[in-house]
Amino acid sequence: MSVGSLQGLLKQGMPTGRRVLPFTIRPMHRLSIKTQRKRQILDITDPVEALLRQHHAAAVGVCHLLVLHTTAALTTADLDPGTDLDMLDAFESMIPKLNYRHPHDPGHVPDHILSALIGTSVSLLADRGSLILGTWQRVILVELDGPRTREIAFGFAVTV
Amino acid sequence: MSVGSLQGLLKQGMPTGRRVLPFTIRPMHRLSIKTQRKRQILDITDPVEALLRQHHAAAVGVCHLLVLHTTAALTTADLDPGTDLDMLDAFESMIPKLNYRHPHDPGHVPDHILSALIGTSVSLLADRGSLILGTWQRVILVELDGPRTREIAFGFAVTV
Amino acid sequence: MSVGSLQGLLKQGMPTGRRVLPFTIRPMHRLSIKTQRKRQILDITDPVEALLRQHHAAAVGVCHLLVLHTTAALTTADLDPGTDLDMLDAFESMIPKLNYRHPHDPGHVPDHILSALIGTSVSLLADRGSLILGTWQRVILVELDGPRTREIAFGFAVTV
Repeated sequence: MSVGSLQGLLKQGMPTGRRVLPFTIRPMHRLSIKTQRKRQILDITDPVEALLRQHHAAAVGVCHLLVLHTTAALTTADLDPGTDLDMLDAFESMIPKLNYRHPHDPGHVPDHILSALIGTSVSLLADRGSLILGTWQRVILVELDGPRTREIAFGFAVTV
Repeated sequence: MSVGSLQGLLKQGMPTGRRVLPFTIRPMHRLSIKTQRKRQILDITDPVEALLRQHHAAAVGVCHLLVLHTTAALTTADLDPGTDLDMLDAFESMIPKLNYRHPHDPGHVPDHILSALIGTSVSLLADRGSLILGTWQRVILVELDGPRTREIAFGFAVTV
Repeated sequence: MSVGSLQGLLKQGMPTGRRVLPFTIRPMHRLSIKTQRKRQILDITDPVEALLRQHHAAAVGVCHLLVLHTTAALTTADLDPGTDLDMLDAFESMIPKLNYRHPHDPGHVPDHILSALIGTSVSLLADRGSLILGTWQRVILVELDGPRTREIAFGFAVTV
């Protein structure tokens, strides 16, 4: 979220989720990621490292990410060409087609289940502006009900 | 921790898991959650925030939760009415019915597998007493072999 | 990490993943775990606690682990005899056999999917040299494409 878009909300805090979270003094940042399709895997390694370099370029610590949604997930993965679609096909096929109860749209249930199963939080180690990752390892956002703009909360704790 | 190094602490220590964990000086808290059914999804957002407000009301940081069991899990999820049962049905259906080896009760194997797969730890960002979550996002305990009392270890690290 | 900030460290730096990570001043440790089979579950609780006792024997905090690979995963689990093989059988059976696109070896796709699904990071609470775990709970490395040597990054943040 850009600083500019927040100006008008400074006095009364901004509605985020179900609560009003004032942001004036908190050292907590956000990433906004626009997705393009119903289901999609996006490599967010570069924007995470950009935020890291902007705010914690000299620090060694843990970078905590939480996607603030119930039809999206965060994890790490190989992103050889086509692997994103392979993963989405497998996820789709793994969730059984049952007679779901969900009141306003039972069609969303597989999206919710995959979000809870893959998980929405990831904790990554960071060393002076770079994430510590394997050769082929990327940080990914799994969009399960797009296209939407997804918010990811970002926090950084120093390691000792 | 060696048994020897614990001798002086044994009087006020408490048995937790396979070790004796003294609790007098550690800034680590616990949540005990009673479950009611064999399989159940419980919203633990409120007790987590109660603990947060009690001990870290003024801080910005990361709230780490770990459920100390092998037939339970932690994640975040949408909890529209019925979604909890939808999720449990899907989890049940996803785990194949194989000829499991587990010695004292092969019937527990699907519970263990779901615990390992969904995961037992979650790291949440917190801002002066409130968790930073999406509109519909709740922190959930997935009970896979209840009813039992489940222990969740809670740790809080400051972000910078 | 900017190229500039690394100049002085490049001579003694070591290649890790896709970047050169200097290791002289960073308080970040690694575990190397040798695996023996194509698919295998290894109990890494003892080596994690050994590292913990070596570097953070007096601290209370969070121990962050990230396996630096895309065909391996980290989680916690029960390890009664045979449960490791039960889990591997179930994982194998859960991933659908689809016509995958992955360019250099479609046979690897199930390994990648399980890594992303189970997850590669885990955050554990630690109290003066011991992990806080349940009675039967162990920290496990899930090898999905061994035998290999797997690198696990380790970071420790103090809780308050």
